Amino acid sequence: MTDYSIGVDLGGTNLRIAAMDAQGRLLEKVTLGTQVALGRDRVIDAMCQAIRGLADKYDGKAALQGIGIGVPGILDMRTGLLRESPNLPGWADYPVRTEIERRLGTRVILENDANSAALGESWLGAARDVDDMAMLTLGTGVGGGLVLGGRIWHGMTGMAGEFGHMTVEPDGVPCKCGNRGCVEQYASATAVVRMAREAIDSGAPSLARAASSDAEFSAKAIYNLAIQGDEDARKIFRRVGRALGVVIAGLVNALNLPMYVVGGGVSSAWEAFAPSIFEELTQRSMVFAATAPASAAGDQGASAQVEARAGTKTIVTRALLGSDAGLYGAARLPFASSE
Amino acid sequence: MTDYSIGVDLGGTNLRIAAMDAQGRLLEKVTLGTQVALGRDRVIDAMCQAIRGLADKYDGKAALQGIGIGVPGILDMRTGLLRESPNLPGWADYPVRTEIERRLGTRVILENDANSAALGESWLGAARDVDDMAMLTLGTGVGGGLVLGGRIWHGMTGMAGEFGHMTVEPDGVPCKCGNRGCVEQYASATAVVRMAREAIDSGAPSLARAASSDAEFSAKAIYNLAIQGDEDARKIFRRVGRALGVVIAGLVNALNLPMYVVGGGVSSAWEAFAPSIFEELTQRSMVFAATAPASAAGDQGASAQVEARAGTKTIVTRALLGSDAGLYGAARLPFASSE
Repeated sequence: MTDYSIGVDLGGTNLRIAAMDAQGRLLEKVTLGTQVALGRDRVIDAMCQAIRGLADKYDGKAALQGIGIGVPGILDMRTGLLRESPNLPGWADYPVRTEIERRLGTRVILENDANSAALGESWLGAARDVDDMAMLTLGTGVGGGLVLGGRIWHGMTGMAGEFGHMTVEPDGVPCKCGNRGCVEQYASATAVVRMAREAIDSGAPSLARAASSDAEFSAKAIYNLAIQGDEDARKIFRRVGRALGVVIAGLVNALNLPMYVVGGGVSSAWEAFAPSIFEELTQRSMVFAATAPASAAGDQGASAQVEARAGTKTIVTRALLGSDAGLYGAARLPFASSE
Repeated sequence: MTDYSIGVDLGGTNLRIAAMDAQGRLLEKVTLGTQVALGRDRVIDAMCQAIRGLADKYDGKAALQGIGIGVPGILDMRTGLLRESPNLPGWADYPVRTEIERRLGTRVILENDANSAALGESWLGAARDVDDMAMLTLGTGVGGGLVLGGRIWHGMTGMAGEFGHMTVEPDGVPCKCGNRGCVEQYASATAVVRMAREAIDSGAPSLARAASSDAEFSAKAIYNLAIQGDEDARKIFRRVGRALGVVIAGLVNALNLPMYVVGGGVSSAWEAFAPSIFEELTQRSMVFAATAPASAAGDQGASAQVEARAGTKTIVTRALLGSDAGLYGAARLPFASSE
């Protein structure tokens, strides 16, 4: 009888559930809306019902190894309490793990969503051929996850991987974390829009036109201008790349990992910001310069992946799994913790 | 029969050798001048002779587990070649490990000196109660070492721990590594003297007097002025602390380790720069703010060490072993690699 696990990606808008086997083959995927507005208990009811539905199907055919749940917010890894979650109001200090274990009678492992995404890319995505990797997820904010030896590196209190709040400009833009100049203030979707509005204020006509014709003026709209060659839009993505380059150069110098993966919504604009990442890396990291693959200045394709397998080149590349990274990573959790 | 090892700290000026047992008890220590000017072969002759002298003494009484050698410069961990060493001219690409193994008939483990120092502090010094730690060594440059699970984290090609070249000012002072604004340009002994000369150029009378009366105007002389209350000198050490604070905050956010140790010659000025480190940490790292010991703003003594053992507090403290850290760490290498 084959082993399988159930992964859950509990987002602010979608609740996605996947049954996967130990080799990472997807058995089945279910997507539900997260009816956050109806309250915590309704969301947990819906989640447990969907999990039970999946588990019943495989009952007798495969052995459930556990349930992994990726959650946005700050977790207490020891107690399984969700400490703080801006996207899940009413969940603070709720014993998510214990409650779901009680209802389903199965082992439950909770994980921060950025860590889950890193584990997903490490298991089945861009970093599948290496054991050690760091991932930056560029969304509303900038999340991060570190995988060492195939497992999430939690650090002392489960708070490792907060790459988004590493400083790139000591006197830079204030961040809601209390710091100034966090990479999140230059490389998140929120930051891209803010930088575009700043550019409009100092006179950027095409960005101004795009903003006035688009009620939801988004990072994507700005990227579309950039690929059409608009210089003001391109400049914004160069700033994104420079900020990411400073942080990734720091990680390369500190950790000398074989792979750094950039994911999240803003990573769709990879072509627009990647050249600036590689410029910064080459200048700011002797370790990178000594281990850069031949194709470092541009996108890193198949040949770079081969070098990564050989364990001598530093690969910086975009994520492969898109929004499934966190879901697959969550499904990996029960296997990763029992190995 | 007890196990012992021999550690060697091969510096540009001193060659120090220690025999230690597996519990970290010092059996014997020998200090020789490194007669670098006489050439590589003479240094290796002297080293092998001194090691043989020690080993003969313990022959039949204790079992030699191997020889660990801390070397300044860039090593190729796989081949045991010294790739580049500014302080040991003529040693580049010399097969140090193979040659010494051949001469002594014992297993030899080479390690970068900053990594050895981190391992020493981790084994017997400030971080002896934790498994995971990072160390910054403030000397002529700024070296670094990372210990995870009681072992040096080498990364993919042995180049991890290059904290000295992490960027703190993206457009800051040029560094010989090719980057701008490396922490080494603000927190090394060289940087302290450079900043003092800059201050003199823009009018700092007491620093100017000290510089003209002292042929070897050093970081130590500037520290002496700082503890006498000289504001220009104090300002320099605040810059040291700010730069270290930015880098350590980044490491705390990325790794969430229980302990960060600051060593090397400049760490004697701890009182002058530590308050600025803690200011930066509190502002720049939510992870630090959530895990700071009660005594965070000042020196962290015995109570902080107790909290570190409990694994819930982030401790940033000065090194305890002084110039012996690298020597003891070198002696640890044969034990750490056979566990």
